[in-house]
Amino acid sequence: MATSESELTAEVIASFGNTTDPRLKEIMQSLVKHLHAFAREIRITDEEWLFAMDFLTRTGQMCSDVRQEFILLSDTLGLSSLVDLINHSKGDDRATEPTILGPFHVANSRLLNYGDSIVTRSLTEGEPAIVRGRVVDVDGNPISGAMIDVWQTDANGLYDIQESNDVSGNLRGLFKADADGKYEFRTIRPVPYPIPADGPVGKMLRSVSRHEWRAAHIHAIVEAQGYRQVTTHIFDKESKYLDSDTVFGVKESLIKEFVKQPDGNLLLEYDFVLVKG
Amino acid sequence: MATSESELTAEVIASFGNTTDPRLKEIMQSLVKHLHAFAREIRITDEEWLFAMDFLTRTGQMCSDVRQEFILLSDTLGLSSLVDLINHSKGDDRATEPTILGPFHVANSRLLNYGDSIVTRSLTEGEPAIVRGRVVDVDGNPISGAMIDVWQTDANGLYDIQESNDVSGNLRGLFKADADGKYEFRTIRPVPYPIPADGPVGKMLRSVSRHEWRAAHIHAIVEAQGYRQVTTHIFDKESKYLDSDTVFGVKESLIKEFVKQPDGNLLLEYDFVLVKG
Repeated sequence: MATSESELTAEVIASFGNTTDPRLKEIMQSLVKHLHAFAREIRITDEEWLFAMDFLTRTGQMCSDVRQEFILLSDTLGLSSLVDLINHSKGDDRATEPTILGPFHVANSRLLNYGDSIVTRSLTEGEPAIVRGRVVDVDGNPISGAMIDVWQTDANGLYDIQESNDVSGNLRGLFKADADGKYEFRTIRPVPYPIPADGPVGKMLRSVSRHEWRAAHIHAIVEAQGYRQVTTHIFDKESKYLDSDTVFGVKESLIKEFVKQPDGNLLLEYDFVLVKG
Repeated sequence: MATSESELTAEVIASFGNTTDPRLKEIMQSLVKHLHAFAREIRITDEEWLFAMDFLTRTGQMCSDVRQEFILLSDTLGLSSLVDLINHSKGDDRATEPTILGPFHVANSRLLNYGDSIVTRSLTEGEPAIVRGRVVDVDGNPISGAMIDVWQTDANGLYDIQESNDVSGNLRGLFKADADGKYEFRTIRPVPYPIPADGPVGKMLRSVSRHEWRAAHIHAIVEAQGYRQVTTHIFDKESKYLDSDTVFGVKESLIKEFVKQPDGNLLLEYDFVLVKG
């Protein structure tokens, strides 16, 4: 029966003392400590608390099979990038840096051949581009047979699974590195796009004068037997929002240049470097 | 473009730097600081993060017109009681201590007369009791005309608004203190009751070996012109769970005794003490 704020916090922490699972006990006690520290630091008012309850409720009720508003909230508060840093530090300075997975990955994309295009929709506009490079280990040795799973938005800023028409598979593909570790595919230059901003998270961003845009990027998951899988992006050096990506996914080492070729096509060359393990 | 956890936290905090409303800016920056500190302290895993996203989503989707699962979560994490302590410290040691409002208050209860019963349902079981006392200032002077709004569960542990039958108004009432500040009403002895435990919060409580019970109490909001309103409970001294009320609402000074009278009835005497302001 607490009579002060610190006594109350201690009492709540103690109420989790009988938790059988030691990890769950640690998590809940740390959660209460930090949640109470937050409320005490800002001297939260009754109205602010009630607003928070309503905000969280609206966020939950915005979620559906095709929308995860809590993950958007986690993304825009930098929590998703932090979870990524905590769990996927690259382990070797020479290796490709990881970044967030995002909500638009699809398992089991089509397996394509070396040099194929990932564009399946004839209406697709955008600047044609070739992406190529090698999958290598930290010493530069090729990793033959590595699998490269890539996905990006169309020129309209939408992933296939966000579109009302059935364009499933558009701008996705799975590639296998050849005997020299080489891969190559055709695509269009990625464009910046806004995260879904018609819900509570979009409203939050506007109320704090933040924009809802992500810098242009191509997603990739690269894996090979005997190596650590890496989930990453390739960012376009010319893109807007590299300095203010709204989900904090940009890393210096992941920014690359699309170079105009004599034939007018764009070429981006990028080697994925995997760590053994 | 952060390369370390602390750099990332700093970058996210800075992203709220253009917030026009200084209070909102303070809240969001403090939120990010404490949220990141929590994730870093427990070294949250990918799976735990995903579980948290799903837990919050399920909590939001449990909410409806008659159920507020996020407030239950706030209650069971001691946040609601903390918000109460931060905002409603009584200001004078002689005054009645406040405690949480809870989700079962109804505006505009019926105005009853001195001595009336708040029980409206003939089927109600439970031990008949009289509650009476005075509303006074911190020097013991009567506050004539003070309004006392009371509500409690029936003997089945349910508030009227939780019942499937229409029993609205049962075990609720509004009383006006007389010229001597006196009030009196008839009721039944309150019983301990479980918070709604068929959702994510109930599951959480079970997973950490906590029970879902509140100690027996009568709610009251007391107000009078020229005095600070107090929202409080009167707890039954004989109740179970006084030491482990699952929403952390019990305060020593609010525990009172139902005394058996020569006629067999129970009598609880309690004076509400208000602070000027």
